[in-house]
Amino acid sequence: MWGGRFAEGPSAVMREINASIPFDKRMWRQDIAASKAHATMLGAQGIVAADDVAAILAGLDQVAADYERGGPADDLALEDIHMQTEARLTDKIGAAAGRLHTARSRNDQVATDFRLWVRDAIDEVLGALDSLQDALLARAEQHAGDVMPGFTHLQSAQPVTLGHHLMAYHAMVARDASRFADARARMNRCPLGAAALAGTGFPIDRDATAAALGFDGPTANSLDSVSDRDFAIDYLASAAQCALHLSRLAEEFVLWASQPFGFVALSDQWSTGSSIMPQKRNPDAAELVRGHSGRILGCQMALMVTMKGLPLAYSKDMQDDKPPVFEAHDLLGLSIAAMTGMIESATFRTDRMRAVADAGFATATDLADWLVREAGLPFREAHHVTGRAVARAEALGRKLEAMPLAELTAIDARIDARVFDVLSIDASVASRRSFGGTAPDRVREAIAAGRALREKRA
Amino acid sequence: MWGGRFAEGPSAVMREINASIPFDKRMWRQDIAASKAHATMLGAQGIVAADDVAAILAGLDQVAADYERGGPADDLALEDIHMQTEARLTDKIGAAAGRLHTARSRNDQVATDFRLWVRDAIDEVLGALDSLQDALLARAEQHAGDVMPGFTHLQSAQPVTLGHHLMAYHAMVARDASRFADARARMNRCPLGAAALAGTGFPIDRDATAAALGFDGPTANSLDSVSDRDFAIDYLASAAQCALHLSRLAEEFVLWASQPFGFVALSDQWSTGSSIMPQKRNPDAAELVRGHSGRILGCQMALMVTMKGLPLAYSKDMQDDKPPVFEAHDLLGLSIAAMTGMIESATFRTDRMRAVADAGFATATDLADWLVREAGLPFREAHHVTGRAVARAEALGRKLEAMPLAELTAIDARIDARVFDVLSIDASVASRRSFGGTAPDRVREAIAAGRALREKRA
Amino acid sequence: MWGGRFAEGPSAVMREINASIPFDKRMWRQDIAASKAHATMLGAQGIVAADDVAAILAGLDQVAADYERGGPADDLALEDIHMQTEARLTDKIGAAAGRLHTARSRNDQVATDFRLWVRDAIDEVLGALDSLQDALLARAEQHAGDVMPGFTHLQSAQPVTLGHHLMAYHAMVARDASRFADARARMNRCPLGAAALAGTGFPIDRDATAAALGFDGPTANSLDSVSDRDFAIDYLASAAQCALHLSRLAEEFVLWASQPFGFVALSDQWSTGSSIMPQKRNPDAAELVRGHSGRILGCQMALMVTMKGLPLAYSKDMQDDKPPVFEAHDLLGLSIAAMTGMIESATFRTDRMRAVADAGFATATDLADWLVREAGLPFREAHHVTGRAVARAEALGRKLEAMPLAELTAIDARIDARVFDVLSIDASVASRRSFGGTAPDRVREAIAAGRALREKRA
Amino acid sequence: MWGGRFAEGPSAVMREINASIPFDKRMWRQDIAASKAHATMLGAQGIVAADDVAAILAGLDQVAADYERGGPADDLALEDIHMQTEARLTDKIGAAAGRLHTARSRNDQVATDFRLWVRDAIDEVLGALDSLQDALLARAEQHAGDVMPGFTHLQSAQPVTLGHHLMAYHAMVARDASRFADARARMNRCPLGAAALAGTGFPIDRDATAAALGFDGPTANSLDSVSDRDFAIDYLASAAQCALHLSRLAEEFVLWASQPFGFVALSDQWSTGSSIMPQKRNPDAAELVRGHSGRILGCQMALMVTMKGLPLAYSKDMQDDKPPVFEAHDLLGLSIAAMTGMIESATFRTDRMRAVADAGFATATDLADWLVREAGLPFREAHHVTGRAVARAEALGRKLEAMPLAELTAIDARIDARVFDVLSIDASVASRRSFGGTAPDRVREAIAAGRALREKRA
Repeated sequence: MWGGRFAEGPSAVMREINASIPFDKRMWRQDIAASKAHATMLGAQGIVAADDVAAILAGLDQVAADYERGGPADDLALEDIHMQTEARLTDKIGAAAGRLHTARSRNDQVATDFRLWVRDAIDEVLGALDSLQDALLARAEQHAGDVMPGFTHLQSAQPVTLGHHLMAYHAMVARDASRFADARARMNRCPLGAAALAGTGFPIDRDATAAALGFDGPTANSLDSVSDRDFAIDYLASAAQCALHLSRLAEEFVLWASQPFGFVALSDQWSTGSSIMPQKRNPDAAELVRGHSGRILGCQMALMVTMKGLPLAYSKDMQDDKPPVFEAHDLLGLSIAAMTGMIESATFRTDRMRAVADAGFATATDLADWLVREAGLPFREAHHVTGRAVARAEALGRKLEAMPLAELTAIDARIDARVFDVLSIDASVASRRSFGGTAPDRVREAIAAGRALREKRA
Repeated sequence: MWGGRFAEGPSAVMREINASIPFDKRMWRQDIAASKAHATMLGAQGIVAADDVAAILAGLDQVAADYERGGPADDLALEDIHMQTEARLTDKIGAAAGRLHTARSRNDQVATDFRLWVRDAIDEVLGALDSLQDALLARAEQHAGDVMPGFTHLQSAQPVTLGHHLMAYHAMVARDASRFADARARMNRCPLGAAALAGTGFPIDRDATAAALGFDGPTANSLDSVSDRDFAIDYLASAAQCALHLSRLAEEFVLWASQPFGFVALSDQWSTGSSIMPQKRNPDAAELVRGHSGRILGCQMALMVTMKGLPLAYSKDMQDDKPPVFEAHDLLGLSIAAMTGMIESATFRTDRMRAVADAGFATATDLADWLVREAGLPFREAHHVTGRAVARAEALGRKLEAMPLAELTAIDARIDARVFDVLSIDASVASRRSFGGTAPDRVREAIAAGRALREKRA
Repeated sequence: MWGGRFAEGPSAVMREINASIPFDKRMWRQDIAASKAHATMLGAQGIVAADDVAAILAGLDQVAADYERGGPADDLALEDIHMQTEARLTDKIGAAAGRLHTARSRNDQVATDFRLWVRDAIDEVLGALDSLQDALLARAEQHAGDVMPGFTHLQSAQPVTLGHHLMAYHAMVARDASRFADARARMNRCPLGAAALAGTGFPIDRDATAAALGFDGPTANSLDSVSDRDFAIDYLASAAQCALHLSRLAEEFVLWASQPFGFVALSDQWSTGSSIMPQKRNPDAAELVRGHSGRILGCQMALMVTMKGLPLAYSKDMQDDKPPVFEAHDLLGLSIAAMTGMIESATFRTDRMRAVADAGFATATDLADWLVREAGLPFREAHHVTGRAVARAEALGRKLEAMPLAELTAIDARIDARVFDVLSIDASVASRRSFGGTAPDRVREAIAAGRALREKRA
Repeated sequence: MWGGRFAEGPSAVMREINASIPFDKRMWRQDIAASKAHATMLGAQGIVAADDVAAILAGLDQVAADYERGGPADDLALEDIHMQTEARLTDKIGAAAGRLHTARSRNDQVATDFRLWVRDAIDEVLGALDSLQDALLARAEQHAGDVMPGFTHLQSAQPVTLGHHLMAYHAMVARDASRFADARARMNRCPLGAAALAGTGFPIDRDATAAALGFDGPTANSLDSVSDRDFAIDYLASAAQCALHLSRLAEEFVLWASQPFGFVALSDQWSTGSSIMPQKRNPDAAELVRGHSGRILGCQMALMVTMKGLPLAYSKDMQDDKPPVFEAHDLLGLSIAAMTGMIESATFRTDRMRAVADAGFATATDLADWLVREAGLPFREAHHVTGRAVARAEALGRKLEAMPLAELTAIDARIDARVFDVLSIDASVASRRSFGGTAPDRVREAIAAGRALREKRA
């Protein structure tokens, strides 16, 4: 597997380990944009003559057009996207191309390009998370009143509604979006002009290039500018956290799609069947979302480990910053899109959910709470009475709500007929009206609030 | 090593694996505070009678006073801090204690306590980072004009000033503080009232408890409230990133303290010597900061892996959330404090730094830039001329600044005497006046800006 | 939380970050053993006089007896277990204690102690894994013929037996044991005598100390001896892999214990109930095993990250090697013990397993295979016929085994009555007699083979 | 960046997230080999007719020849290498191709292919590690007697030889090779015949296919066979550990290549220069080796996280097993090859190493040991005397070996002229003759032993 590659000897190995063009060609748009901003500023400051600047800008547009058609070449001799762009520019406009690199260095150039790329990546993620939230809001609204078991320890604990359950993921996604937005705000400073590491003696205008590239301003310290990869780690940390949430929902889809649960039928689009076993519908997409989250975690770890303990300023180890970010971004994009599609198209088996929620005395805590609230028992005593009531119901083979009142008053005389208002799963759910609770009205309020925020963003 | 513990049989193993009191007792202050806020609200809402509430509040104060004296007991029978506090409260005030748990559950209680603890931890870190920044600002000011080699690839590349180098860390720490602040803002919602997972039917006032505990408001979804540990992961991600920065500085201190570098003498306080080898002064504290950063990374990984793929709502796996956070916080606290102390007390060998900076034609790029700026050569041609000038200087055994002008004009007639204004390392450093550059004036401006921000925070 | 500790100033911080006694005191037995071996060798080689050696050995026994009673003291002034032991030895025997450290250094001493500790840890794990395998073998035997659904994608795919399923974990545990054994064999070389890093000029006998401590021989290179922590990483890698397996089984127990599955009832010993919800039995121990595996992974990562990129020979970062190993070992010990207990005491609901296995045409592949085997159809054509048969059975509301023969021959005339021999789940299971297959006889053979290996080890 | 890809809607997303052909096409050789072994066995057992088997074998050879020429196609419609091979086989030989999949499933097929691939990967690594060891042995021999400073805490502690230092890495690489060999032995069991998960009813001969593919025998449990990815994790754990060692050596090369150290000049082949700064030679390859080790660690973490907590048997998450292994293998291959090349071609500045070793009283411990050994002082007293001698030497501005004897005897009368035999760095190094010590003779013995083992392997 290695043979061919290494047979040519040391120079082949060095060329391959050293070249970044196979992956950094993905940044060509950012490289062109940053070079244009730089050239324009050099002209405005009188550092490069106007006609040279004009030639450079026109030439960069031509290079960009070439890239748009055929992409950068996988040419290891021009080892990175920056060299390839400059070489092509020289082909187009000749010697004037040699003035573009005035007052900058590959160190600040790559830091700028990569930062722009990551910022664009965040914007893509934020858009995708909006779609995911839309899907969650739509399905949550549809099922705001449908009762399902609420689990702790994967044991049915109290009834909730499916809409409420889906809105829990809406809350997670909202935090994810906020985390990406924080990362974007923190990284939005432009390192261009830091040059190799010390700044430059040319009278450059860093505010101008920063503004032209949509940054909030220039970075504060030139050494830090070329040695900082926090922005990439912030992206990866946000991506990993988001992937963990997707993995939790994917875990639930896999679980719910199993025959014993039977809570969901994933659409054909997002699962694969068996030609001979009609009952088998493999939740492939959900499993892959779960698997991808492990890899995204690995990407985060990779870059953190690489940066740990590097002295200032630039070290070549930092060239290993891009593959994990690119990989994580690809995996995250697929994961969000797949999860959005699964949510939109899933058929929830609300009858089956309801049946599981209705078994097993899931409203026992409602009885206990009623005893506290209406009959004035202390919490711990109420629990004792409830335990006896449930035991009696179990002995009689009845649900709590189907117990004769006399059976309940025999256990505790303070119980009266009003108790039946809380013993059904619908009554239980309806009663949990505390802010953020599962009462369908509350869920609908939460959906409305989510919609309002969404519209403000749109 | 395991023998004694497991000899007692299954119940001993279960007690030990299940009990969290050995670590969650650290949250006793938060547990008391949250219980007091909850009790006060229960009274205000008429859910619990005023005299019971008064008894509970007084009792909790007594329990807190006991804890203040002797700490919670390591009693595995009362498996967590919540049970221990309730048991002690019952001892103090009897049956009324049984009313405290009305309208809450251990699930929202632990989520609230831990969130409070992490929020306090962030406040501690922010204070410590202020001290670290103070130390950096003070030493940077002292050395704003002292020249040292700026490295890329650990090769001397261009002269910078020590003050500028230290201010690079100031910039990193500023990002760290901003990351912690973002985490704090995102987590500052109160889960109390989510109850077990579904909310509650009691007429509680979640805004009131949230406000009493300093939160910006209640959390939006009860299922999410008890299953969310994002706040802990956000803390760990911020801590890990901060630790990476500390590890970079520690790496430099270890390097600089080596005999071949000789850039720094760490104070006796922060290093250990050898009784028989006077030249040997081991930078133990810096090495431990570097080592601790690896462990903090491990803590972050631990919690992320644990949370990945857990279905809603609460699973007992989540009890493993606290040890990594507590460990990371302890390690980070020591690391920041040690690094602050090392910075404050280090003796920088500026003469040795200067000597290294002055060797090896470190101002070659200044010559090239001068040729572009003053003689109008294109960047790439200027590099060619510079290469020849350096080769000639090397052949003559002279520094660039000590070259006879005739030698330089022989290489390129466009060179004139003004070139000597940029060829010394002092001139080089002074010339890099672009924003964020290493010119001493720029460094002093950056220090002033850092001071101003600091005063605004204080 | 940090306040008290740091208030005392730098010296308090340094003492705390520097001291390893709070954790390395766990190695006191190893420290004593290694010192005794070293002293004995010094005597045998004539490096230290016989009476001094006798005093040292007697003194070390006294120190060990003290430790046995009260443990080493948490005295940060004597910063590690080695200094504390030497200080106590000096108290016991006076100046002769000063001869013990001849021809060794703390660097080789700590490497030896820790290696001994890890070796003992492995022996403990191997013992615990034997017990785990015993539990698996016993339960597998009991259920060698009980049919359950075999899952892929958590979808019921083909019937297997519970015994076969449990034996899959037996195979994993066997690999775990082999991995620990490999680690043990690789680490079993003694670093004592490497001294600080260069070896020593004293005429020591490294073979003698190695043999006395049960090593296979001395390590080959003194620099490597004091800078190597592979043995600790090998331990952690083995522990993490083992923890992953335990986490998989724990995941299944959590799943199986859920109401929709209902495959297992965990004993009271290993779960916690609800006083008011009799149906709820939280699989706490299984969840904690799953949670602990995340932390063990974090421990592995911590040490690997710490070691990455350290130059030779000893750096103080390496003091951070012990906490992750100690923590992982404690967590792994609890996890194995808890899992063993859960397996031994679980009640498997074989009726429920059978019912799920019997639903959903799980023997469809058996029909297809029969068509290939007995009727000579190519595999792909057989699948086509099977698909039509299943569709017809579904339309008729019958299981495959309950289909009238005429219905089947109508689909494909090559089907005859012998087909019913393979259409029940029992027949399906019985037929899978390939080596390693789920046929009960095969499972019993595998159990017998496991038993035989176990007896050979005992 | 995501736009084009996702614009086509859900089916495009699903096709992309689901398809493994973009990466698993790397296993085509293994897929062909396993299919041939399976077909041959089916024929031998009479399960498939001889002429069909002959057609299949001939067809597979044709498919392999096609692949050899152009590689498998990146055709997402044929989602994995197994389907693509079967489709091509059908094109070649028609319906008989449909008999190849008899008595196997994609689950055991992929498990077999991937295991074969990993086994081949290990064999490649073992070969590469042999070359790395050859390089280390050659350079160690050349420098067996050249003195350099031995460092602890990156402080010059005691003189060692460069050959000894290089042999420390030889010891690490030997452990790496042993770890890979252990992994190979543990994984060398054939899962083919486990079918989907339960084994098969066909009278297959698993011993035959195992033997044909070079395995030691078949795996023991069919469920485990298709759900086990230990072999891949073992590979990754071995690769990560090996990468950590390479990272340590790379760290040293970066350090040594810095101007203040000046211990090594990397060849032009493995570093990049600056056209204008002749002193600057960036150790790019060493830095990339260090960077790659971070990514390999991330790969290991990715797969472990993915496998944690998956229930049996096969889940689609496991499709994410290959990218981390393939990536790690590529990175490791480049790293070993680059490091081998760097070692072979580096110019060690032994004069500079010697000068640093000779400064700073690095033989102080030799004096102390002499006092113990020859003058009978206890270790701790000897240290006291040495401290005073060094202080006096420092005051006189002399090296220890250049001290007048009278000065030494004035400090302690037990010192005599023989002491000068140990005070030079050469004498110090020569004296450390304990097994594994740095004495040149010992180093040469270690080299000879390494050579002997190497020849046995060749």
